[in-house]
Amino acid sequence: MPRTELIVGVVGATGMVGRELVALLERRRFPVGELRPFSSGRAKSSVLFRGRRVNAPGVDAASLAACDIVFLVSSDEVSLELGPKLAKAGVWVIDDSAAFRMDPKVPLVIPEVNASALRKDRRLIAGPNCTMTGLAVAAAALHGAAKVKEARIASYQAVSGAGKAALNEFFGQATRRLSLHSDGRAPVLSEPKSKALPRAIATNVIPQVGRFDEHGHSGEERKVAAELRKVWNAPAMKVSVTAVRVPTIRGHALACWLTLAKPLSASKAMALMKRTPGLRLSTGADYPTPLSAAGREHVMAGRVRAGATSRELALWVVSDNLLKGAALNSVQVAEELLRRRWLGSRAAARG
Amino acid sequence: MPRTELIVGVVGATGMVGRELVALLERRRFPVGELRPFSSGRAKSSVLFRGRRVNAPGVDAASLAACDIVFLVSSDEVSLELGPKLAKAGVWVIDDSAAFRMDPKVPLVIPEVNASALRKDRRLIAGPNCTMTGLAVAAAALHGAAKVKEARIASYQAVSGAGKAALNEFFGQATRRLSLHSDGRAPVLSEPKSKALPRAIATNVIPQVGRFDEHGHSGEERKVAAELRKVWNAPAMKVSVTAVRVPTIRGHALACWLTLAKPLSASKAMALMKRTPGLRLSTGADYPTPLSAAGREHVMAGRVRAGATSRELALWVVSDNLLKGAALNSVQVAEELLRRRWLGSRAAARG
Repeated sequence: MPRTELIVGVVGATGMVGRELVALLERRRFPVGELRPFSSGRAKSSVLFRGRRVNAPGVDAASLAACDIVFLVSSDEVSLELGPKLAKAGVWVIDDSAAFRMDPKVPLVIPEVNASALRKDRRLIAGPNCTMTGLAVAAAALHGAAKVKEARIASYQAVSGAGKAALNEFFGQATRRLSLHSDGRAPVLSEPKSKALPRAIATNVIPQVGRFDEHGHSGEERKVAAELRKVWNAPAMKVSVTAVRVPTIRGHALACWLTLAKPLSASKAMALMKRTPGLRLSTGADYPTPLSAAGREHVMAGRVRAGATSRELALWVVSDNLLKGAALNSVQVAEELLRRRWLGSRAAARG
Repeated sequence: MPRTELIVGVVGATGMVGRELVALLERRRFPVGELRPFSSGRAKSSVLFRGRRVNAPGVDAASLAACDIVFLVSSDEVSLELGPKLAKAGVWVIDDSAAFRMDPKVPLVIPEVNASALRKDRRLIAGPNCTMTGLAVAAAALHGAAKVKEARIASYQAVSGAGKAALNEFFGQATRRLSLHSDGRAPVLSEPKSKALPRAIATNVIPQVGRFDEHGHSGEERKVAAELRKVWNAPAMKVSVTAVRVPTIRGHALACWLTLAKPLSASKAMALMKRTPGLRLSTGADYPTPLSAAGREHVMAGRVRAGATSRELALWVVSDNLLKGAALNSVQVAEELLRRRWLGSRAAARG
């Protein structure tokens, strides 16, 4: 049965997540009849799709409103402006920003974990924060089997999560610092200036991702805690996060401690994780790293072991922040809508 | 009162910690009458002390046995070979290796925390693992006031902690990777080969420091847990560690969660930490990083806030792994011996 081909809009198509998303639509054979990419900046640009260049002009609301589905992979501001309008106009909107994630009327969906949160009449769907996605997938089965009561998470977040400007800043700083270190010694150097990140990131780690609130938690730390509770439907779960930017390019890693309501041995936990969709588990002395997870669609986990107390597990999770943490999850949500036959060609339906 | 000048041996003087140690002896005006530096490798080398080059030949046990104090900043093997012999010969031995730290007859000492563990008749003294030192100092007062029952620690450890070869490997990998990234994009690259570390470290993080045991804990994770219990004299404390190597040059950082026996607010904790010797506390939106802590003698802490549960605090600690984590602590132990007049010139005493 040939599927009707869709008009697909992408806002922020020329950004790092946007380019990954357009590539995934092609690679995963999403039934795109017409691709309408838009650049959220002012610069004219284009994307490569099925071997040809497609112009990505500035946002055109009327053109977007005629799409069957629109992926928003731009800023919170752009999503706030476009998301509700498009959904009201009957367009399925998959929003990668943080703008609507905690809105009780907006499903926050990781298909492997909570596809059941999707509703046919809720056309605005949020994708989760790229940092929590790895744990949400990796420990979903553990939460299902033994209920996670407390989670403590230290992150090792790649610079690409902060955007292109941060990545360029990183490369510039790293090149300068390494030339100073070319004699193999380790002099103490003054910190270079930074704009895109709160401190220099080359040969450094920064325990700040987002702004601090009055309790000392950063924006990223609040997002991870709140979104994990929502995706796992665990409103009473206690979550504490230390979000740290590290000098890696892509792949967010997490050191996690999970306190469970019921006893669960590390070996039983691993057996559950081996059967978890979207997850690849390393065992024994093997483990994933950002370099081994970059470009992979699966969440990767390893180092599952006993934690500090009984009923506690420690584990290590890595996922590609631009793929499963962002672009891939958005495409998978759209694929789930197709599977349910909720998403189809509006033009074909009318005509 | 002029102090008698001492004959001071340093084994491993030309290593990264050794060079820092020799520089500290000079900078802190340790009463060195004669410096006897030894290279633990076979290569002939020298160190700079008080403006002149001092030869550092291969280890000479007889020459060391005639010292008043010997700093061992080489390998576990060298310490096992030399430490007990020298102590038996009446030499004060400050050992930076892991060889004797958990020996119940050997004091494991961080002077600001547990100088009371020193004994006049125990001439072999161990300095602690560089990763746990930061937390041991930063939270000593919290442990004293409210007793730490559980600790969960995720580390961000600098490459210098793995030695010169690892640092050179890092610089080589980073230079190659960055030249590939000079167009500002983030291609997915295959991982370069590694020898000194278990995986490539440039633009990566590695959740393995040391070998894994049958329970899945790495050598570093076991050391941090065991040594923290010993230094804090808290044998029943539950400690879980995830030790991770990150692409920084110097300065080990820790994301910590401490569960306390008694309630302690973040503001009271900070008041206690402000009065802790050897600690500099950042408050508000400020925090230390490896770059800001490199070359500093103080342990630095920040981001003190409520943790996941009541009676729990989260905090961020950074300390220079070559200084407070190694060379500086050794010199401070020796200074404490001087203060107590336990350490003096044996030649002067005899003659």
